[in-house]
Amino acid sequence: MTKTIENRHYQALENAPEQPDEPGRRRFLKQSVGVGTGMATLGATTISNVAFGASDDAAEEADDASDLPDVIDWKDEDAMILHGRSPITLETKRYTVGTSGITPATRLYIRNNLPVPDEKIVADRDAWQVSIEGVKNAKSLSVGELKTMGLTSVVMVLQCSGNGRGSFDHTPSGSQWRTGASGNVVWGGVPLKDVIAALGGPADGMKFLTSTGGEELPKGLDEDKIQVERSIPIEKALDDVLLAWEMDGQPIPLVHGGPLRVIVPGYYGCNNIKYVKRVALTPKESAAHMQKFSYRVRPIGVEASPDQPTMWDMNVKSFITGPGAKPGETVRAGHHVIYGVAFGGNEAVKDVDISIDGGQNWQKAELFGADMGRYAWRTFRFEADLPAGKYVLASRATNQSGEVQPQYRLENQRGYANNSWHDHALSIVVKG
Amino acid sequence: MTKTIENRHYQALENAPEQPDEPGRRRFLKQSVGVGTGMATLGATTISNVAFGASDDAAEEADDASDLPDVIDWKDEDAMILHGRSPITLETKRYTVGTSGITPATRLYIRNNLPVPDEKIVADRDAWQVSIEGVKNAKSLSVGELKTMGLTSVVMVLQCSGNGRGSFDHTPSGSQWRTGASGNVVWGGVPLKDVIAALGGPADGMKFLTSTGGEELPKGLDEDKIQVERSIPIEKALDDVLLAWEMDGQPIPLVHGGPLRVIVPGYYGCNNIKYVKRVALTPKESAAHMQKFSYRVRPIGVEASPDQPTMWDMNVKSFITGPGAKPGETVRAGHHVIYGVAFGGNEAVKDVDISIDGGQNWQKAELFGADMGRYAWRTFRFEADLPAGKYVLASRATNQSGEVQPQYRLENQRGYANNSWHDHALSIVVKG
Repeated sequence: MTKTIENRHYQALENAPEQPDEPGRRRFLKQSVGVGTGMATLGATTISNVAFGASDDAAEEADDASDLPDVIDWKDEDAMILHGRSPITLETKRYTVGTSGITPATRLYIRNNLPVPDEKIVADRDAWQVSIEGVKNAKSLSVGELKTMGLTSVVMVLQCSGNGRGSFDHTPSGSQWRTGASGNVVWGGVPLKDVIAALGGPADGMKFLTSTGGEELPKGLDEDKIQVERSIPIEKALDDVLLAWEMDGQPIPLVHGGPLRVIVPGYYGCNNIKYVKRVALTPKESAAHMQKFSYRVRPIGVEASPDQPTMWDMNVKSFITGPGAKPGETVRAGHHVIYGVAFGGNEAVKDVDISIDGGQNWQKAELFGADMGRYAWRTFRFEADLPAGKYVLASRATNQSGEVQPQYRLENQRGYANNSWHDHALSIVVKG
Repeated sequence: MTKTIENRHYQALENAPEQPDEPGRRRFLKQSVGVGTGMATLGATTISNVAFGASDDAAEEADDASDLPDVIDWKDEDAMILHGRSPITLETKRYTVGTSGITPATRLYIRNNLPVPDEKIVADRDAWQVSIEGVKNAKSLSVGELKTMGLTSVVMVLQCSGNGRGSFDHTPSGSQWRTGASGNVVWGGVPLKDVIAALGGPADGMKFLTSTGGEELPKGLDEDKIQVERSIPIEKALDDVLLAWEMDGQPIPLVHGGPLRVIVPGYYGCNNIKYVKRVALTPKESAAHMQKFSYRVRPIGVEASPDQPTMWDMNVKSFITGPGAKPGETVRAGHHVIYGVAFGGNEAVKDVDISIDGGQNWQKAELFGADMGRYAWRTFRFEADLPAGKYVLASRATNQSGEVQPQYRLENQRGYANNSWHDHALSIVVKG
């Protein structure tokens, strides 16, 4: 299967139409998207006249998240950017990420494909049923039953496929996320492999895990078109996937998928199905539109197709969160601690390099704080004397197998998987 | 100094008056309190007719934390027990501790010696001033300045000295905490040693760090009597103490000590001074009542005195948080995962043993989830088949240097430092 994904990956890249090399526009970059299980760097492309990414700035002020809907009135409004009310779409402001390594529920982004279900589904959380299929002894289990079958936890970066979309020049459809459709979250639940083993193991010929969300669908529409359903490789499902009922030390809030959510560590957010009502080992990927056509990485202008890479495992990424990331913040000349977060994608981060001059010179940052495991992000710091002037602060992470956060994003129609250090650099002005 | 503490420690124990050995009452136990830097076990004492600790049960229902004051209206009421409104005193319910390893701010206990300061002190957090004294170049620094001097984070059990006080038979004064005056929290800030080094290092002859809270004191009273002020050994201050502005990924909430709190990893809660306005290296311990007489471990009936052990480093402890810890919860016969949290005190936890028969037989539990460092608690799990019947679930932690959570608490006037596995056992009824 690995091979298949790599082939698709190359195919999609090779099929990419050339973009005009005009100033201020980016060409379609022949670099790895970091989806699938292989990473390929197919050569660099010269970029000219490209502006660096900046802080959340004015746009953030414009869509402050005040007067939130009841179901999320417990969110820390001041820390959030509101992108949409139905479905609720909320981003974490860059400067509020903090340096504790953990994203509290009150500050975690929200991205839902469909409206949030009625609160009645969390009135008796243990009663929620999930159908386990594609195993020798298929069975419906309640959350209460799952809690007797095993228990573990994992700290994991949760990140939307479109995080960083706001940097693309062709204005892909979807929320114009900057850095904040990501967070580092502790999930607690039962290892899916334990549940599958308890039900006799996988039925013959199964190659994927297909999970289906429990959102109520409007009547009269084609379910395949709107159903929240995603498939991932069975190898991953039998490795470290969870059926989770807990998030950051509390029952998973409704808006984040409680009572029960599939957690696929190292994979993009869309694979972590909320309100999961069906967990099935299947011989093929789901036929739902969300699997076949959505979340496909495709060149700009190319139609979606199931033979394009899908948004599975994440790529290596980092971003600086301070100082100077808060709109209106004054940074005075002198000694400073530059800080941020870094993660390795589907494996642990190894190193972070820092530049204060937009990538001309790099120095090693220090990772600090608790190492919460391979799927967690790490906080990093770098001390520097900053005389008055303009700086472009950039961070560049490297993961354990040596994959380096690239300078430029992979151009693609939907604006997925942006891990460009260039796009995530932070321009600041230091005053005397 | 270690010797001094040990001497005091022994003294206090040796001075203990014998308690009558009546059924249902505990004698003063000659065992280590686990304060100071040494742990001494001076021999066991036979105990008879002692009831096991139970869940939060009826008492919890009686003081549910509804209608909380505005300053803490963001707390998760359902997870809390209200012990008092002025000062605000709030406990985390045992069954809500969760299995993620982290205690979210919304569920963290509150214990304040004085009323919470006005919210104006967090209106401009970076402007808060702290006076650094007892160094070569004493200076007042703002939080904004501290943020340029260094950055680190630590995951740490925060625990009130009186946690577990509710188990004592002599009804010590103070909140009748059960398990929930404890939580596992990520703190972010600057290492105090970096600040001290930047100010020229310690002045000559300094032996303690004395920190003073910024609460506004009522006029006309003797400040020494009510001031929140604590001293700790300078060796600890120069090791891993923080001046922290962040808690669990957000600015420290006012009620938890924001804008700035002293964090002393591995020490009891009272040493973590909130709204800290003065951080001084001093030749002697503070003369404030809180240091001289409060938080002293003394035999029942003995007056407080500065020669008694003070509540510095914590002892090894664990408690089970489920299943069956929720009042009214039905536990059905069958396979179960027993789970809870364990911490080693001033060092990492190494092992946890579990008994389902009140301590007659023990088996190893598994630690799981991220290891967040020596000062953090670990989640543990133990799988067992539980036929219908009554069980007494007990956990017994051992830390890295082999100190074992004792069967019985050290009897003491104020009900401090209770780490008895016996008192923290959980009685449950499993139904067929």
